Amino acid sequence: MAALAGRLDGQNRRMSTSNSSKGSLAARPRVLVIGCGFGGLAATRALVGAPVDITVIDRSNHHLFQPLLYQVATAGLSAPSIAAPIRHMLRGQRNVTVLMAEVKGIDRQQRQVHLADGQSLGYEYLIVAAGATHSYFGRDEWATHAPGLKTLQDAFALRARVLKAFEQAESSPDPAQQRACLSFVVIGAGPTGVEMAGTLAEIARHTLKNEFRRIDPASARVLLLEGSPRVLQALPPELSAKAAAQLRALGVEVRTGCRVVGIDAGEVEVETGDGTVGTERIPARTVVWAAGVAASPLGRMLDMPLDRAGRVHVDGRLNIPRHPEVFVIGDLAAAQSRQSDGRTLKSVPGVSPAAKQMGAYAASQILQSLRAPQGQVLPPLPADAPGAFRYRDYGALATIGRKAAVADLGFLQFSGYFAWLFWLFVHIYFLIGFRNRLVVLMDWAWAYWSFQRYARVVAEPVDAEPLSLTKP
Amino acid sequence: MAALAGRLDGQNRRMSTSNSSKGSLAARPRVLVIGCGFGGLAATRALVGAPVDITVIDRSNHHLFQPLLYQVATAGLSAPSIAAPIRHMLRGQRNVTVLMAEVKGIDRQQRQVHLADGQSLGYEYLIVAAGATHSYFGRDEWATHAPGLKTLQDAFALRARVLKAFEQAESSPDPAQQRACLSFVVIGAGPTGVEMAGTLAEIARHTLKNEFRRIDPASARVLLLEGSPRVLQALPPELSAKAAAQLRALGVEVRTGCRVVGIDAGEVEVETGDGTVGTERIPARTVVWAAGVAASPLGRMLDMPLDRAGRVHVDGRLNIPRHPEVFVIGDLAAAQSRQSDGRTLKSVPGVSPAAKQMGAYAASQILQSLRAPQGQVLPPLPADAPGAFRYRDYGALATIGRKAAVADLGFLQFSGYFAWLFWLFVHIYFLIGFRNRLVVLMDWAWAYWSFQRYARVVAEPVDAEPLSLTKP
Repeated sequence: MAALAGRLDGQNRRMSTSNSSKGSLAARPRVLVIGCGFGGLAATRALVGAPVDITVIDRSNHHLFQPLLYQVATAGLSAPSIAAPIRHMLRGQRNVTVLMAEVKGIDRQQRQVHLADGQSLGYEYLIVAAGATHSYFGRDEWATHAPGLKTLQDAFALRARVLKAFEQAESSPDPAQQRACLSFVVIGAGPTGVEMAGTLAEIARHTLKNEFRRIDPASARVLLLEGSPRVLQALPPELSAKAAAQLRALGVEVRTGCRVVGIDAGEVEVETGDGTVGTERIPARTVVWAAGVAASPLGRMLDMPLDRAGRVHVDGRLNIPRHPEVFVIGDLAAAQSRQSDGRTLKSVPGVSPAAKQMGAYAASQILQSLRAPQGQVLPPLPADAPGAFRYRDYGALATIGRKAAVADLGFLQFSGYFAWLFWLFVHIYFLIGFRNRLVVLMDWAWAYWSFQRYARVVAEPVDAEPLSLTKP
Repeated sequence: MAALAGRLDGQNRRMSTSNSSKGSLAARPRVLVIGCGFGGLAATRALVGAPVDITVIDRSNHHLFQPLLYQVATAGLSAPSIAAPIRHMLRGQRNVTVLMAEVKGIDRQQRQVHLADGQSLGYEYLIVAAGATHSYFGRDEWATHAPGLKTLQDAFALRARVLKAFEQAESSPDPAQQRACLSFVVIGAGPTGVEMAGTLAEIARHTLKNEFRRIDPASARVLLLEGSPRVLQALPPELSAKAAAQLRALGVEVRTGCRVVGIDAGEVEVETGDGTVGTERIPARTVVWAAGVAASPLGRMLDMPLDRAGRVHVDGRLNIPRHPEVFVIGDLAAAQSRQSDGRTLKSVPGVSPAAKQMGAYAASQILQSLRAPQGQVLPPLPADAPGAFRYRDYGALATIGRKAAVADLGFLQFSGYFAWLFWLFVHIYFLIGFRNRLVVLMDWAWAYWSFQRYARVVAEPVDAEPLSLTKP
C-alpha cells in the first residue's frame, strides 16, 4: 500500500506539473480538499493561480446548491438545475485535479488520505470540508420512515414518496388508508422544514387541482412539528410569528413545543404539548425529517475531540490543534467568531455563507504559509485574536410558499411578498452557473403563472406491494 | 376478492358518473386502458367526450417521450423534459380516472383486470397497450452488464454508468483499467444504438474537453456492434451507408455482421466477422444493450397465441380472436396492415406513429360499437378487409450526432445537416406539452452553442468498491 501510494503521488505530482503552465519541475505543495460543497469549492477557487497542486475529492460528481434541494424534493425543479459537475466548474483552473472518490481514512501523522478504492494520496495541506448529514438523535431506526434531505438521492426518494402518496390515496378503497396517504408530517421547523411544509400545502391545494377523481387533494393535511417554542428559531421572534401565520394561511397545521417520541410506518407519535400527560398518534404515510443535523462521520477520521454534534474544534485559523497544515471548514467545523463588538465569541452557524467564508479564509492562510520563509510554520491563532477567522452575518432568509417569506438583514426585518421577491433574487444570484440561473428563473416564472410544478416524475414504477400502514 | 371487486366497481361507477357533466345515473360502459405510452394515450384522448368511463392504468406516473430517452441517458436532457405526469395530461378529460398501479392478471371470461394491490376492475372494453421491453435472446444474465434503455430508471442508470466510467478512468492508477473504462460498446445499430453511439463519441470528444488531468477523454473508444450487414436496417441501404459514414466521422468504430457471444463485467466477446474462425474479447466497462426488443410480459396474461417476439396476434379491428371487446395496440400487437397497393399485407412496425394510429383506431371502433344497436357485436375484421386498421408510414428518421442525421420520407431521402434540422423540428413538434417543447429547444440551443450537456448528474455517490474488471 505504501509503495503504491508513493508511486501514485509521484505520478500525480509529475502529471500536474507537466500540466501546469509554469512548467517548473520542482514539486509543488499538494493541497487536498475533501468535499466540494460551498466550503471546499470556495477554498479551491481562492487558490486559483497559486503555485500548488490541488486535488479535490468528492463522493458525488456534482456540486449541489443545497438551499434549493427542497424544490427538487417537491417537483419544482429538476436535479440538473441545482447540481453542476464539479470538474466542469473547475475545468479552467489548471492546478486542480478532481477525483470522484470516497475517503476511508485520514492519517494525520503520515499526511495521507486513504480512499475506498485502495489508493492513498499524500498532502502538504489538507482542507476537510465534508459537511453534515442527518441526525436522528440516536433513533436511527426512524430513518426508514422519515427520510431527511441532504443529497439528490434523498430528494428523489422524497419526491417519489410525496407523489406516490397522492397516487395511493386515489387507488385505495379504504378511507382510513386514504386519510393516512393524504397526511404529511414534517418534523423540524428550521428553514428546510418550513419550506417543505409550505410547498406541500401548495401542491395539495393548487398543483394537483382537478387531477384526481376519487379524492380531493386539497383535503390533505400538512403538519409541521417543532420541539422548540417557535418556528425558524434562528430568526427574531416577530419574524417567527409572521412565518407561522403565513404557514397557517397556506393550510399548514403548525405545532410548536411538540416532541416526537415515535415514528413507525404510517404513524408519528408525539407527546401532547399542552401540559396534559399522554401521547397522540398521527397517522401519516409521508414523514419528512428536517430536525437534526450532525457533522459528517468523516470528522471522526481526524481522531480529534469533537463537539456534541460531531463537529471538529478548530482555532482562529480554522486549524486543528498541533496541525497548522490541516484545516476544517463548513458544517464540519466547530468554529468561533468575534461578534460585531469585536470581543465576545459566538459559534459560527452551519449555513452556506459561513462555509464559503471559511473556505476563502483557509485558502488565504495557505497562501500566507507559502509566502513564509522556508520551514517557518504559522503559529496557532486564538479565535479572538486579530487576523482570526471572522464570520460576517449578512442575515437570514426563509421562504414559506408562493409570495410568502421572511427576511432578517440585521438592520432590517421584513416579510410577505417583498421578502419573497428578495428571497427569489438572492437565490437566483447565488445559483452557480449562468445557465442554471436562467433555467431556474424560467421554471419559477412558469410555476408562478401556471401554479404547476413540472418535475413530477417518479422514475421507479409503482410498489408491487402496497405500503403496509399501521391502523390507528 | 369477488365481493371486494364488486364493491369497488360499484363505487367507481358511482363516483365517475357523479363527476361526469352529464350527471346521468345510468351506468356507462367502462373502458380500461392498460399502459399510457403513445398508444394508450392516443386511445384515451380519442374517447374525449364519449359516454364511457375510462380508467387508465400505468405502472409509472408519467407518459414518457421515448424517442428522446437516449438524451436523458447521455445527460443532454433532464428527465422532466421528456416525462409528463399522466394525470396532469388528462386532467381536463372528465371521463378519465388515472390509476398508478401494476396489472397482475387479466380475466377475459369475467372481463376483469386484477391489480397487484389486490383490487380488481371490471370492464366492458379493454385496450391493452403495455408496450415492449428488452430482450436478451434468452441470455438474461447479460442484463446486469449490458443494461437496455426503455424507462427513465434505465436512462438514469446508464447516465451514471457512462459518467462514472470517465471518473473511474481519471482516478484509476492501472493503464489497462483506464483503457477498459474508456471503452464503450453499444450492441445493436437500430435508431437507439446509433443515437447512443454517436452521442457517446460526442461526449468524449467535445463535452468533456479540458476537464480531466490524467486521461484524455477524446481517446475513448466507442464501438457499435451490429449483427446484420448494415446499420439502421429499417432504412434504405444508401441511407445506412451514409449513417455509417457519419458515425465513423464522429469517431465511432462501426462493426456490422458481428455477433456477440458473451458479455461479462468489463468484457464483450464477439465472433470475428471476417470469416476466420474464433472470437475476440473487447474490454469495456460500459456496455449498452440496444439490440433486442420483446413485447411486454403482460401479453401472456391474455392467454392467447403470441408471435416469436411475444406479441399478441390481432385482426384487422385490432381485436384478439373471439373478443371484440379486447383491443391490443402498439408494440404489444402483432398487427398486419395493407400496403399502399391496397392488397399485400405487411407487419406494422413497433414505432410510436404506429402505436398512436392504433390507439386512435381502437377508440374509433369502440365508438362505432357504442352506436350499434343494443346487443349487436361488431364482427371480426380480416386485416385486408375495407375498414381494417391501416398503418400510414410517414417515414423514418435517425439522428447520429451534432448536425448529422438521416431521413427517409418515402418520396424523399436525405442526410446530413438538413436531415438533422428536420429531426430536431419533428421531435420538438411531437414532444408533448408546450412547456417541455420550449425547455428542450432551449436545452438544445445551449448544447449546440456550448458543446455542453447540462444534465451530468450522478445522484448516487461513488461505488464504495471499485468495479471488478476481467483482465484481458
